[in-house]
Amino acid sequence: MEDIEEFKYEPKSVKEIFIEMKNTVELMIDLAYASILFGDKEIAEEVLELEERIDLLNYQLMTHTVLAARNVKEAEQATTILQMANAIEDISNAAGDLAKMVLEGVELHPIIKETILEGEEIIGRIVVTPESVLVGRTLGELELATNTGVWIIAVRRGKRWIFGPDKDFKIRAGDILIGRGTRTSIDQLKEIARGIIRVIGNERIGRD
Amino acid sequence: MEDIEEFKYEPKSVKEIFIEMKNTVELMIDLAYASILFGDKEIAEEVLELEERIDLLNYQLMTHTVLAARNVKEAEQATTILQMANAIEDISNAAGDLAKMVLEGVELHPIIKETILEGEEIIGRIVVTPESVLVGRTLGELELATNTGVWIIAVRRGKRWIFGPDKDFKIRAGDILIGRGTRTSIDQLKEIARGIIRVIGNERIGRD
Repeated sequence: MEDIEEFKYEPKSVKEIFIEMKNTVELMIDLAYASILFGDKEIAEEVLELEERIDLLNYQLMTHTVLAARNVKEAEQATTILQMANAIEDISNAAGDLAKMVLEGVELHPIIKETILEGEEIIGRIVVTPESVLVGRTLGELELATNTGVWIIAVRRGKRWIFGPDKDFKIRAGDILIGRGTRTSIDQLKEIARGIIRVIGNERIGRD
Repeated sequence: MEDIEEFKYEPKSVKEIFIEMKNTVELMIDLAYASILFGDKEIAEEVLELEERIDLLNYQLMTHTVLAARNVKEAEQATTILQMANAIEDISNAAGDLAKMVLEGVELHPIIKETILEGEEIIGRIVVTPESVLVGRTLGELELATNTGVWIIAVRRGKRWIFGPDKDFKIRAGDILIGRGTRTSIDQLKEIARGIIRVIGNERIGRD
């Protein structure tokens, strides 16, 4: 085949596209702050890739939405989908702008990191030790967002990044989790990751 | 005094302003989705008021930042603060656009609510019964974000809304909490609010 497909055709419903857009843009904001906090260009690059993904999804959404409207009422309702999609795209662009600050390599004002570290929800870096009850369990089993209040946005494993890990992602000793939560939540998860706390939420997990 | 002050002069550091901007814009996004989900114009109006607050804070931030720069290096670093503030303002505007969809009174496409209800993080409405261990305790004591994974963004008390309640806010029977979290977190908090679950996080609270 001579022609190169620009992207694989993905048959998806408007709702599936829309949910992916909303989830993606939320991840992008968290990753953008993480890239600034850690001065990490790889995370920043991921934000820009997700920004492209949002553009593609928005394009698919527009096509689907316009195709589906069969009368004036449906067209009016469809317009509200496009309005919300535009707001999501604006947020995605803003996250991209944050990530570009890291890629431009200009030295950031120290207040920027302090702001990310002292807001109501912060970004934290959690190192998993072999002693932790987290080891060998999936994010789906652990339900860390519910049980610890920490949302895992990325994992550093050796030299590799896993962004937006899903429920089947199994934690290994040595993983560095990047999470978003309150300071208390992050501190608590750090103690779980160090093997000091051996209880997660209401559940008692572990080998002691 | 004849003159009416447009706003009270608030002596704040750049960092304090910046942290307030970041916290506020996060609340705005959550409230914007809540206003759409519940079709609630009062919540939508609050988002627009917060959008004005962000504009004011951004103005104060710019003034402070420009004043503080004493040489080229400081000016360059200060520019990064303004870049991040602009990104926050863009997100604030997007949240405002979402809220305006509610105020315009156009019937929203049903997929919009479904998307807000089926994303990774959702918005939920939690009714507090007299039997609940939540009653009579402050948000600071309960640490719901850490202990249940639910972030309380607003409370409906009788005919009144409390937006972005702080740690001193004491929960009463009959309060309707609006929270953001995973579906599991929200469902768990609903059971706590109904008095079915009497344990919060690792802690055992209550009268049984």
